[in-house]
Amino acid sequence: MSASPVDPLLAELAELDASRMYGSDFLLTWQKSDDELRAVLAVSQALKRLRAADVSPRIFDSGLAVSLFRDNSTRTRFSFASAANLLGLAVHDLDEGKSQIAHGETVRETAVMISFLSEAIGIRDDMYLGAGHEYMVEVGESLSAAHAAGLLPRRPAIVNLQCDRDHPTQAMADLQHLANEFGGLEALRGKKIAMTWAYSPSYGKPLSVPQGVVGLMTRFGMDVSLAYPQGYNLIPEIEAQAGKLAADSGGSFTVGNSMDDAFADADIVYPKSWAPYHVMQQRTELLRAGDTDGLRSLEKSCLAENAAHRDWEATEAKMQTTRNGKALYMHCLPADISGVSCDQGEVAASVFDAQRDATYREAGYKPYIIAAMILLSKFRNPAAVLARLVSDARPRVTG
Amino acid sequence: MSASPVDPLLAELAELDASRMYGSDFLLTWQKSDDELRAVLAVSQALKRLRAADVSPRIFDSGLAVSLFRDNSTRTRFSFASAANLLGLAVHDLDEGKSQIAHGETVRETAVMISFLSEAIGIRDDMYLGAGHEYMVEVGESLSAAHAAGLLPRRPAIVNLQCDRDHPTQAMADLQHLANEFGGLEALRGKKIAMTWAYSPSYGKPLSVPQGVVGLMTRFGMDVSLAYPQGYNLIPEIEAQAGKLAADSGGSFTVGNSMDDAFADADIVYPKSWAPYHVMQQRTELLRAGDTDGLRSLEKSCLAENAAHRDWEATEAKMQTTRNGKALYMHCLPADISGVSCDQGEVAASVFDAQRDATYREAGYKPYIIAAMILLSKFRNPAAVLARLVSDARPRVTG
Amino acid sequence: MSASPVDPLLAELAELDASRMYGSDFLLTWQKSDDELRAVLAVSQALKRLRAADVSPRIFDSGLAVSLFRDNSTRTRFSFASAANLLGLAVHDLDEGKSQIAHGETVRETAVMISFLSEAIGIRDDMYLGAGHEYMVEVGESLSAAHAAGLLPRRPAIVNLQCDRDHPTQAMADLQHLANEFGGLEALRGKKIAMTWAYSPSYGKPLSVPQGVVGLMTRFGMDVSLAYPQGYNLIPEIEAQAGKLAADSGGSFTVGNSMDDAFADADIVYPKSWAPYHVMQQRTELLRAGDTDGLRSLEKSCLAENAAHRDWEATEAKMQTTRNGKALYMHCLPADISGVSCDQGEVAASVFDAQRDATYREAGYKPYIIAAMILLSKFRNPAAVLARLVSDARPRVTG
Repeated sequence: MSASPVDPLLAELAELDASRMYGSDFLLTWQKSDDELRAVLAVSQALKRLRAADVSPRIFDSGLAVSLFRDNSTRTRFSFASAANLLGLAVHDLDEGKSQIAHGETVRETAVMISFLSEAIGIRDDMYLGAGHEYMVEVGESLSAAHAAGLLPRRPAIVNLQCDRDHPTQAMADLQHLANEFGGLEALRGKKIAMTWAYSPSYGKPLSVPQGVVGLMTRFGMDVSLAYPQGYNLIPEIEAQAGKLAADSGGSFTVGNSMDDAFADADIVYPKSWAPYHVMQQRTELLRAGDTDGLRSLEKSCLAENAAHRDWEATEAKMQTTRNGKALYMHCLPADISGVSCDQGEVAASVFDAQRDATYREAGYKPYIIAAMILLSKFRNPAAVLARLVSDARPRVTG
Repeated sequence: MSASPVDPLLAELAELDASRMYGSDFLLTWQKSDDELRAVLAVSQALKRLRAADVSPRIFDSGLAVSLFRDNSTRTRFSFASAANLLGLAVHDLDEGKSQIAHGETVRETAVMISFLSEAIGIRDDMYLGAGHEYMVEVGESLSAAHAAGLLPRRPAIVNLQCDRDHPTQAMADLQHLANEFGGLEALRGKKIAMTWAYSPSYGKPLSVPQGVVGLMTRFGMDVSLAYPQGYNLIPEIEAQAGKLAADSGGSFTVGNSMDDAFADADIVYPKSWAPYHVMQQRTELLRAGDTDGLRSLEKSCLAENAAHRDWEATEAKMQTTRNGKALYMHCLPADISGVSCDQGEVAASVFDAQRDATYREAGYKPYIIAAMILLSKFRNPAAVLARLVSDARPRVTG
Repeated sequence: MSASPVDPLLAELAELDASRMYGSDFLLTWQKSDDELRAVLAVSQALKRLRAADVSPRIFDSGLAVSLFRDNSTRTRFSFASAANLLGLAVHDLDEGKSQIAHGETVRETAVMISFLSEAIGIRDDMYLGAGHEYMVEVGESLSAAHAAGLLPRRPAIVNLQCDRDHPTQAMADLQHLANEFGGLEALRGKKIAMTWAYSPSYGKPLSVPQGVVGLMTRFGMDVSLAYPQGYNLIPEIEAQAGKLAADSGGSFTVGNSMDDAFADADIVYPKSWAPYHVMQQRTELLRAGDTDGLRSLEKSCLAENAAHRDWEATEAKMQTTRNGKALYMHCLPADISGVSCDQGEVAASVFDAQRDATYREAGYKPYIIAAMILLSKFRNPAAVLARLVSDARPRVTG
């Protein structure tokens, strides 16, 4: 292939210090430096361009990618499978229903048992506040110890596919989308993004998407407006951290209780439902206790509380108040679309319809983001790996 | 490899106009031209011969093949997995139990979300009359729209793995089997095939197999005798269409209510149970309504009705009345074998035993038929693709 | 790669007669000759060294490996998936819940239907005494018949992933572990191994691990001490056979009812819970009869019986009585660790902790053992296959 579409990305990569990513897991964006985040974007785009040119980015001849989902998922499951396949890894699910984890096996042991020939482990664990991230850390420590002890020939890279704190593959795909829509990361400086709660007739949606968005977009000089009804706050430490990140990056971070204020003059809106932090805390306790009655009663009271905020909907009228009336609408999907997937929900059908394609484009970055996270963890010199893929130019399709 | 076993098929392919298959789905055989059906058979045989010579027909270096089964399946599931693997694709199931489809996500969105790096989607959806085919069309339209909008780099090919109307991978495998047993498609002209209902102690079996058979075999000058007890008819439009297809091809199509008449002098018999059209209609309504009691009562009355037709069994005596007493027995498997898989069923144990191997051979074509359908949809010049596989002669096994 | 790490194994392999393994299944170690077992170890080590040197041992360009698990499993499931992937095969599960086996399909038919493009079938079937092994034999006979009749282009190799009699992939991994820990198979001669029952608060654990261990370790001149509480015996024929195997190999085999006697001066201890033979017989009858009440009452009485043997625990004090107080502790994992995975169990936490890494190393051989079993069944000249892998030296990772 002509190397041109990938060359600028290789040049960019050469300027970045991503050396600490080698051998590291990708758990939370705020544990990564700006350079490291930029490296993920560069590698992700390079892989996407290679594939678009039908050059195979397969770097593994064999090896497993383990997926462990403790919550339902279509798009992230397929994104992970696509990323693994793109790199040459075979996906194998750790289905805890089928496995012996249910029999009291320790995390440490399972982590090693699934890793003898594995290169990557993708984990979604977002049900329990204070547990998902901790679990991933524990798996990672087990793998490192086993690798150091010579029990594992290679140390699989963990990719956080959503935890109780962050949803880094989503947030990074969102960032890639924004960079592409606005003309690069630098162009995001000074842009206003409204990350707002929105009404949904369901309950118990995790906090990781809004937390991931405010934890990442505040890094790039954007004006991040977080808005939610009184009481629907995120994990307090993460809100506090967003303020600091914004200050450091020359952007701003505000928290308010008005969707209208957040939408006003916004360049980007991200209206999305979630369950309040205090509800997630209660829910976690009830889930741990196996208290079905308690869960039902919590759900009932939450839905009643939600219902008081039906006006938190991204309507045409609200969209009119954004920058030139045409803010970019974002969502991690699936959205609760009024009159489509529910009677009334997060977004008016006409608003969603007008920008559906953009939300699909946003989602389409995720497989490459995941593949980039794996690649950066497995190779000391990612630019050299990409350069070899370019020069080998092995066709993905022999047509 | 010596190219000889594949060369005649390449020559045949060169004579056929299959250009419309490029970028198209394979949903119903009657949407395809004779040339297109012949192209499927030619490519299917070429792939089978390549593999038999241990030449790898892998044309993809990576890419997903998505399987979506809304009904149980062993053989079709494995056929699809085998076809995908043969071509170099990794199978990933869309398990609606595990996915967010259950949460009201629209078909359109899911179709795109599973397709960012996918090359093919196999769908089985045969539970609801008037729904399975429509669903596949909707998925296809969504993919086309997303591809046209630049949201998907490639447009995955849909293969119908059984819908409410047709079961084209089965019917095409059946046709391949007949062509091989009788010495080519031309040799089928004037042959009598009895597609008959047969008794089974179960109920609710889909109509797609008999519909697929009468919708396809009438295309090749055969005398197709469809027979069933009064009231057990197929979808009326499909029966009507079979008559027209037979007339066009110089064959014949008759519908009767006597298994004996159908078997008389038949060259081929295909005795197989199904639920009558009107029952499938009621069942569809009850399933939609979630009416468990209604379903139970429908099942009861149907089984009682079935029981009045216990004599619709392919016995030795009935087989004696076929051409020279040795008609080819066909079945999509598993058959309800009297005294084996049930007390009394579709076929006598001795009849089945005598031709078991033939039914296994029949089933063995399916993986290659599916692979051919995918290949013809993905490549503008399938003959060139096959010729390159022959000349590359990459060994499938490095032993 | 420098061929040196694999060369000695190729030389060893050249001295062994493993010709009968070609085209054979691996069901029970006692059906295999000493040469054949040694060949498995040699090939297994060669594959492990190739992979450690990042040389790809992929010998298949496509093909399926079918897994059929009738009992829960994490480690064996992943071991099989890893082995298949290492060799280039894609794993496809035969999930009987999703498949039509549940609908009365015969074993013979299913065996053929899943095998049209398959190279290997791994089966775990350990729930029913007198059934698991028989099932595998039946599948194997069906495959052989279909292959002989020309219905299958290749005859898939069956690997027993645990049956009612043996757990050969575990026992062979255990043997590999012992050979590596003690300096070769010859060094095992005269070593004392205590295969003992141990207390567990669960019940119904299969007999296949202890049976596999006494059926294999008696082949190599070891002094095998089997110990269990009165009544907890294994299948009588397998105990009797172990005595004969020990006599033939110049080792010894004793059965006793004292954990202390077994541990005394042992070089290796393998404390592991199982359900007594007579309980497994009753359980099998109750499972077949679907007698839930009976099963519950059997479980209750067994747990009560187990509770009388709480002192069968591998404690520090017991470990002190072994050879120099430092016997090698073995377990197939997961172990019931006192105070960790249960209140009181098979092994004291400190004993397990001290040798955890060794048990992980033990488990790590299994993927390569399985891959070796497949390779030896598929290739007439396995040494030539390995030599070619060495000389090709295709990198597993293109980094």
